[in-house]
This record gives sequence, C-alpha cells and structure tokens, in this order.
Amino acid sequence: MTEAGCAAWGAVATLARQPGAAGIRRLLEADPQRAGRFGFRAAGLLLDLSRTSLTDPVLAALLALGEARGVARFRDAMAAGQPVNGTEGRAALHMALRAPAGGFHVGDEDASATVRSTLDAMAGFVRGVHGGQILGAGGDRFTDVVNIGIGGSDLGPAMVTRALWRHGMPMRAHYLANVDAHAWEALRPQLDPRRTLVLVASKTFTTQETMTNAKLVRDWLAQALGEQGLGEHAVAAHLAALSTNLPATAAFGIAPDRVFGFRDWVGGRFSLWSAVGLSIALACGLEAFAGLLAGAREMDDHFLAAPPEANLPMLLAATEVWHVNFLGYGARAVLPYDERLSRFAAHLQQLEMESLGKRVTNAGLPVGHATGPVVFGEPGTNAQHSFLQLIHQGTTPVPVDFVLVARPDHAHPASHRILLANALAQAEALARGRTEAEARAEMARAKLPPEEIDRLAPHRTFPGDRPSTSILLPALTPATLGALVALYEHKVACLGAYWDINPFDQWGVELGKQLASGILPALEGGATAPDAATAAGTQDAATAAGTQDAATAAGTQDAATAAMIAEIRRLQAG
Amino acid sequence: MTEAGCAAWGAVATLARQPGAAGIRRLLEADPQRAGRFGFRAAGLLLDLSRTSLTDPVLAALLALGEARGVARFRDAMAAGQPVNGTEGRAALHMALRAPAGGFHVGDEDASATVRSTLDAMAGFVRGVHGGQILGAGGDRFTDVVNIGIGGSDLGPAMVTRALWRHGMPMRAHYLANVDAHAWEALRPQLDPRRTLVLVASKTFTTQETMTNAKLVRDWLAQALGEQGLGEHAVAAHLAALSTNLPATAAFGIAPDRVFGFRDWVGGRFSLWSAVGLSIALACGLEAFAGLLAGAREMDDHFLAAPPEANLPMLLAATEVWHVNFLGYGARAVLPYDERLSRFAAHLQQLEMESLGKRVTNAGLPVGHATGPVVFGEPGTNAQHSFLQLIHQGTTPVPVDFVLVARPDHAHPASHRILLANALAQAEALARGRTEAEARAEMARAKLPPEEIDRLAPHRTFPGDRPSTSILLPALTPATLGALVALYEHKVACLGAYWDINPFDQWGVELGKQLASGILPALEGGATAPDAATAAGTQDAATAAGTQDAATAAGTQDAATAAMIAEIRRLQAG
Repeated sequence: MTEAGCAAWGAVATLARQPGAAGIRRLLEADPQRAGRFGFRAAGLLLDLSRTSLTDPVLAALLALGEARGVARFRDAMAAGQPVNGTEGRAALHMALRAPAGGFHVGDEDASATVRSTLDAMAGFVRGVHGGQILGAGGDRFTDVVNIGIGGSDLGPAMVTRALWRHGMPMRAHYLANVDAHAWEALRPQLDPRRTLVLVASKTFTTQETMTNAKLVRDWLAQALGEQGLGEHAVAAHLAALSTNLPATAAFGIAPDRVFGFRDWVGGRFSLWSAVGLSIALACGLEAFAGLLAGAREMDDHFLAAPPEANLPMLLAATEVWHVNFLGYGARAVLPYDERLSRFAAHLQQLEMESLGKRVTNAGLPVGHATGPVVFGEPGTNAQHSFLQLIHQGTTPVPVDFVLVARPDHAHPASHRILLANALAQAEALARGRTEAEARAEMARAKLPPEEIDRLAPHRTFPGDRPSTSILLPALTPATLGALVALYEHKVACLGAYWDINPFDQWGVELGKQLASGILPALEGGATAPDAATAAGTQDAATAAGTQDAATAAGTQDAATAAMIAEIRRLQAG
Repeated sequence: MTEAGCAAWGAVATLARQPGAAGIRRLLEADPQRAGRFGFRAAGLLLDLSRTSLTDPVLAALLALGEARGVARFRDAMAAGQPVNGTEGRAALHMALRAPAGGFHVGDEDASATVRSTLDAMAGFVRGVHGGQILGAGGDRFTDVVNIGIGGSDLGPAMVTRALWRHGMPMRAHYLANVDAHAWEALRPQLDPRRTLVLVASKTFTTQETMTNAKLVRDWLAQALGEQGLGEHAVAAHLAALSTNLPATAAFGIAPDRVFGFRDWVGGRFSLWSAVGLSIALACGLEAFAGLLAGAREMDDHFLAAPPEANLPMLLAATEVWHVNFLGYGARAVLPYDERLSRFAAHLQQLEMESLGKRVTNAGLPVGHATGPVVFGEPGTNAQHSFLQLIHQGTTPVPVDFVLVARPDHAHPASHRILLANALAQAEALARGRTEAEARAEMARAKLPPEEIDRLAPHRTFPGDRPSTSILLPALTPATLGALVALYEHKVACLGAYWDINPFDQWGVELGKQLASGILPALEGGATAPDAATAAGTQDAATAAGTQDAATAAGTQDAATAAMIAEIRRLQAG
C-alpha cells in the first residue's frame, strides 16, 4: 500500500477503534435527520445508509481512503478502455454495452460501434422470431427459448427474465446450466421441439457443461424433428449461439448469421447486457431489453459523473469496506422484498464473490486484509421465516441489503403493504434491537409471571446495532432493474480498487477444472480398483497400497479421491 | 460451562493452537489410508471427513468435549420426549414422526399413536384424491396441489418435492410462500381452478403471510368456480388445512375431516415428516412419502444407537465445532452435485441458521463463543462458475459440504461422470491447493515466457488446506433423501448441546413481526406526512420535526422508518 493509502487506512481504523463505533441505535436516536442525510439518489433509486454505523467522519475517512486507493482513477481507467483486468490484459468495458452511441474505445476499437452492430443483429433476429419470419423447421412459430450456458452465461439472463417476465410476453424462457442431466430431463417434457429455439451461450464454445448439454439438446431436436419427417438440416433452424468462436459454432451446425458475439472486454458476470442477454429480449421483448440497458446507462452516467460523496456505487463500496475490514463482518445477506427478484441474490453471489474472492493484489502480493465477503440471500418475507433468526440473534452481525419496490404490478395492495411493512420492520428491528429492560417491560404488560419474565428476558432480547442498507425502487421495471444491477457492478469495481485486487479475473476456477479432467477417465471405467473399493470405509492396513494404486490409476496422487471413485464404482455396479 | 466442559474445551483449543493445526494437504499426503479411517457409514450414506484438518487426537478431543457438554444425554432426553425446548417448555420429537410404531412418548401422550392416526388420515385422503373418490366441486380429478405456507411449512416439502418429483407422478405441486402477491400472480395462470387442490399450512392458522395468500387463493377459487355455475360451497371441496386450529380452519371454510394436525412437539423446520408433508405424498405418491420416513428412521436408529466415534450426526457436529469455534470459520457452503437438490441448501439454511443463530445459553447467559455459521449454497457444477472462486482463493476458508449421488435416474452416463468428476476435483483442489512452485512448473511446461510466469504465478497459486466434507448417496431415493435430511436435523441437535443453546426455539423472529404490525397502518393511508416526504433525501433542517411527527404517526419512534414510508407513499402517489 502507498504511504497515503496506509495513512488513510489508519485514519479509518482509528475511528473504528473508538468505543461504540459499531453502534447504530444511538445514531438513529440522536439524529432524526439521519435518514435524510444518509439517503442518496440516482437513476430513480434511493439508497438509504442510515441504518449503518457510518457517521460523517467515518464516511469522510472511508471516501478519503477510496481517494488514496485510486477508486475514481480506476473508474476512469475502466471507462477509457484501459486494461484494468491486468492479469488477462483486458479492458472491462461492460459500460459500452449500455451506451451504443457512447463513444467508448478500447485501443483503436470503437467499442460503441461494435456494440451497436451486435445490438442491431440481435434486434433483427428477435423481430424475425417474434414476427414469424424466423420459424422452426416445420414452419411453426417459436414459443420457447432454451438458453444453455453456465455462470455468467446463465445467472444474469435467468435472474432478469425471472424479474421481468409476465404471462403474455412473447416467449417462455428456460435456462439449462448444470451438467447434471437431471436438469435437462426435468425441462424436456415442457418443450415442444417444433416450437423450441435453443441458444448455446459460451464465449469460447468449449465450456464443458454447456457443450455437453448442447449436444444432448441437439440430439433431442434431431430425433424429434426427424420423427416428424423433417430432414437432417432441420436442427439448424432451431439453434443459435452466443459465442465468438465461429469455427466451432459452424462445426456444431449453427449458421454464421445465428451467431451473436461479444468481445474480450466483456466479462462473463458482466455480460447480460451483451449478446448473452438475447434470451431476455426473446422472452420479454426488445423494449424490455432496451429499457434494461437504458437504466444501467443512467447508473453508468451517475457513476462516471457524481462526486464520491454522492456516488452510489462508491458509497456502497465504502460501506462494505467499513463492514468487512474495520468491523470484521465476513458475510452479507441480500434480501429483495419482491418475489420476482428471487434469483437476484444468486446473481450478486456470482458477481461479488467471483470478483472479490481474491487473496493477492494486482501486483501478486498477499493482501494484508480481508477481501470479498460471503454473499447470500432469499426474498423477503420468506427469509424472515428462515435464516433471519441468526441475523437478529446470532453471535456475529451480518449486514443486510434490503431491496424494496414501492409500486407493485398487481392489484393486491393489502398484500403489498404487508410486504413493505415487514421489510421496514426488519431493518428497524436489526438496528434498534430490544434491550432486556424493554423485553421485561413488554412481558410485564402482557402480565407474564415474574419468574417467567426472568427466564425468558434474555431470549427475547435483541442486541440491535445490526447494519442494513435499503434500496428503494419506484417500481420494478426494466430500467430500475438495469440501474440496480449496474449499481452493484460498479460497487464491485470500486472494491477492486479499495482492495487493490483484480475484480475481473477468476483464476480460482482453473485448478478444479484441470483436476476434473484427470479424474474423469477413472470414472469412465478401465481397470477397476477392487482394493480401493474395499479400502473406502475400512481400517484394513492391507488395502492401503491398493488405494494408492487406484490413486495413480485415477490420474491423481490423491488417495481420498481414489477411494471415493472406487466407492462410486462399487455403488454403480451394484 | 461446567469444569469438565471447560477442561475439554481447553484440550481442543490446545490442539488448535499447534502449528499447522488447520493443515489438510499434509495429512492426506502422510496417510494414504486417511479416506478409509475418516469415512463413516450409516443408512446407506458414506460420510467422508478425510478432507478436513481433523486428526485422531483432534476428533477424540472434540468427542470428549461433546461428552462433557452432554451431547448423548441431550439426544436421549429428546428421544424420551423431555422438554428439551426449554424456553417454550416443549419436547422436540420429530423422530416420532418417522416411527409410527416406535413407542415414543411425551409425558402421558403416546406420540407414536398420534402419529399413526395422522398418517392414516393423510393416507386415506391421498388415496381418495389419487383414486378419484375425492374430486373437485365440478367432478374433476385434481391434477395440481398448491401448498400455501411459509418457512417450515414451505421449505421442507418444497425441497423434497423438487428432489423426488418426476414427470408422470400423481400430481403437480406448487408452493406459495411469500406474501408478495407477485408470487401468486405468477402461479395463477398455471392453474385450472377445477382441478386445483389447495393446502393451507399454518399450525396456528394465524401466520400473516399464509392467511393473506390463502384468502387471495380462496377468492380466486370462489370466483372461478362461481363463474362455472358451481355453488358457493364449491370452494370447500378444493381446500384442506395442515393446522391444529380447528375453530379457525372451520371459520375459513375447511371441513374438519380435511384438517391434518401435528402436535407442539413438532417444530416448523422439523415438520416435513408430519401433516406438513401432505403435498409430498399428493405429488410424489404415498410410497415415496413412506420411503422418506423410512430413510429418516434408519438415520434415527443409527443416531440413537451408534457410539459417538461412529455416529454420523455427532461426527458432523464435532467437525462444525472444530471449524466454527477453533478455526474461526464463520460460514459454510452446501454444494449438492445434483440439480434435483437445488433447494437443499435453502432448507439447511433454515434448519441450521434458525436453530443455531442464538446468542444466549439455555440458562439465558451470553454464550462465550461463536454459534451457528452462515449457511448457503447452490448446486454444483453451477457453483463452480459462480462463488467457488472465493472459496478457493478468498482470504477466509469456507468449509464446504459436498453431496454426491452415485447412480443417476437418467440415461446420460457421460453427463453424470462429468458431474461426479467435477465434485471430486473441487474437493481435491480445495484441500491440496497448488503451490506457487507447482503453478510455475505448470506454466513452464506450457512454455509461457518467464516474465509472464513471474507475473501470473501468485494469481494461479491456491493456498489449499480448505476443508470439505463429502456425503455420498448410492442414488437419490426417498429413503436416502430422508436419511440425509435427518442427518442434518440431528447434527443441529448435537450442536445445540455442544453450544448449550436451544436449537428448537426462534425468538429472533418476533421483534420484526411486532414492529411490522405497528408500521402497517402508516402504509395504509391516514394522515399523509408531506414534511417527512420532503425530508427523505434532503438536508433541510426545517423538515426534521416533520419527520419526527411522521415517525410517531407510523406507530414507531424511528425517523428512518418514517422517512422511508413517506418516500414510498410519494412514489405510490406519483
């Protein structure tokens, strides 16, 4: 860390060491204007940071730390198309995807022009499908789209479609990600092959899970369409690809004009705005997709222009640094109070944990502090009847992100009021808690016997001072959703700068992939390993050597893997 | 803590302080028999603890701690129907649900007889529905069942049905939990009211979310059936309840012979085996439900009889104590490598976090150590393309529970081998890691230029020594699923004893509920609070008083809640 960075870090640490620095309740009680002063707006969203332990000096110190760590510089380098993804030597210009006329460049490439051309091609395809010019091999209109992809080629579009799709929209969308064929077997009976359009989403067109599933689905199409007397070329009418590997997509049987690409400056977890979002446009319509981009762009404009003290992504990042590095909170819960956002937490889980789960700095030195926290969540109110117990009364605070939507898209206002009342109440309960004296007074009012009050008071006490942030959306529209997702994308970038880690690579994925290819042959058969089969679960010394042999046979030196393989093969055989 | 407890705790702590106590790789390398010695079997399941840092002395010390903390005594008290849920003065006898002839008693009550009688009534109802003796008001067979419940009345049955349901089974099941009416609006178009059976699952029949949704669905039934000329009593033919409140269910219009009860010794998150599981039996068949109970019972028998050193729930609990209390790991990931188990992590999240997220002991004193960790997860291989980056290369280890299934229920063996190879590879990669020297050697073999190797080596290094447990199921059947869920239920009970907390209450749920009822009127209208509306997001001192007035009007003293309410109402109005 630079000298300025160390000093700025120390300044925050000094504030964090002051007695009661994690207190929230007293801040709320002392300052009735706190909600106004810690409420921030952009792109139609209201971000409420009042239920954290941030104070004016703490926030100022955190933003000074951000300045010292180069948060704004990093943002500007991103926007300028510089290779901010240092280990891979790439730009991270997902902002260009939302700004088709925005003038973004990567070196000599006019990124905006690339984006415009892909969006035009996507729009032409979507119009053709919706308008009935692009049909199945038997002349049927497409009713269903299956997106085959995993990780960044799955979670973003799946989350958005879940959020925006309503009965009556142009097509139904399905997402096939897991290489577990049970996923495909559950989906298959829902599909009419004559009316199903399949998108294969893999930048390299080599992702093992995606290609395995794509072949299963292509075989199904070939057989089903063949049985209906449609020729061997029929399948091609049902396929498209979201990829950059033209030779491989062609070899798979996908026509070049059905291949929609994206550049290496679009990372998987930032790609739903690119061709990877084609299923969104097909399912929800081009207008929805355009609205999504427009909302994100509004957040981009804010992120690029607003000063740190009013910049929502920077403020959210500063809050996370406070919680993770200075208060020691290692996990964060995401609770959208909207059933349509039921996969929002899963999307953020990827976006944040894959981006920020790093242990070395950009220069390759061990970071000297915690980086990305665990992120998890479920929609409210469901979560209240599940894990919120721990967040209220567990031994370690878990900050919560609440997402609230003011206006529903249904005609059940009473339900919506109950929903919102619960969201507000949880935030209040976490921050204020209930002292033992309050718990006792309440039980006394309910006329509980004194010994019962003594016994229960500690269990009915809530420590309070548990932080949350709330984001209020006027309604859940493509635009507000786009702004919301972009807010978190930029927060992640800011945290990359705060922590001097690369938020755009994911080297942690490669080792497991390599080992899997070594293990696969052992599961495929060849010499069985009866000794190892016995060794699993026994204490028989004589079998140890057999286990080691099996380990070698399995393409690994690891006896534990070999033992499991032997046990799996035993179970599969019997 | 007792003196013996303190000594036993200290003994584990001493082992944890030894250099390299968290090491795993060296243990695997030093002992090729480790997988055999740390593999444990019960009820058809294999539990592999070899990829943790447990050693023989550590495990012995942890089990001695369990002995000192009364784990086996607590188990026996549970089985004897004693009020192990101390704060509520209740037994926790979910084991009786799996043992209709098992001789369980709660005081004078023959719990087994109660269970048998409910199971008989459920079976009669299910047979009637499946056999066509119990029909919709218009004489139609029921094809769909909607379970309306939340938390324990939702997650368990929803998880099980997701796991076991296959195309062609008796009925389709749907789960409506969230009070957000968007959930109902998404479900409604999928249902034919003439063929839809609705279960209202709420023990007290007062759960706000459930009753709100139940009324929406009842209104829909009444209107839809009415439009088809079926009389006003038609709705009753489509309703049943999983509840103990007979007056309330009757008032709701549900006939007494359609109400299936369960006793207060069945906690919500342990209730899927009770009447709360009726949707499982309706959707998947009675045989599947019976298989589920039988598998759980097999695990119960094991739990009750096996010595600690071979007792899977006790071993799993000991492992968690090691990770949480002695190594300081505050979160755990659950990764089932089976798409059908896609809600398994959500079920465990409730089961574990609601049970173990406690801060005071049974006697009401602050616990002096961490309790339940954060639990989260998604199916593999999906998780590999999402948050596993952090688990491989983040700054804090996150123990992983892998669940593997040897034999699939489909005819795509190649997919299944890839799936299993990935699961095994992840466990191996987490434990072994990759040293910087190994990373460098590998890049040298790939002929990367030296400066590239220098630059990338730290990023391609994996620290290893990241713990995981693996549970191998021969196949995913009702019986193995039952055993798996029961394993975790008992693990939770053991941890309650280890930590001297009550794993069966959930007082942390009540404060938010109370505050919500205070906030609700302010969202319903009445006097608007224009000043507070302005105050939200402004720095205007003059509006502070208005915010406070609004706070009072909102039935809360909290200005932050009042400001949000004002903003919501402003957005709803405009």
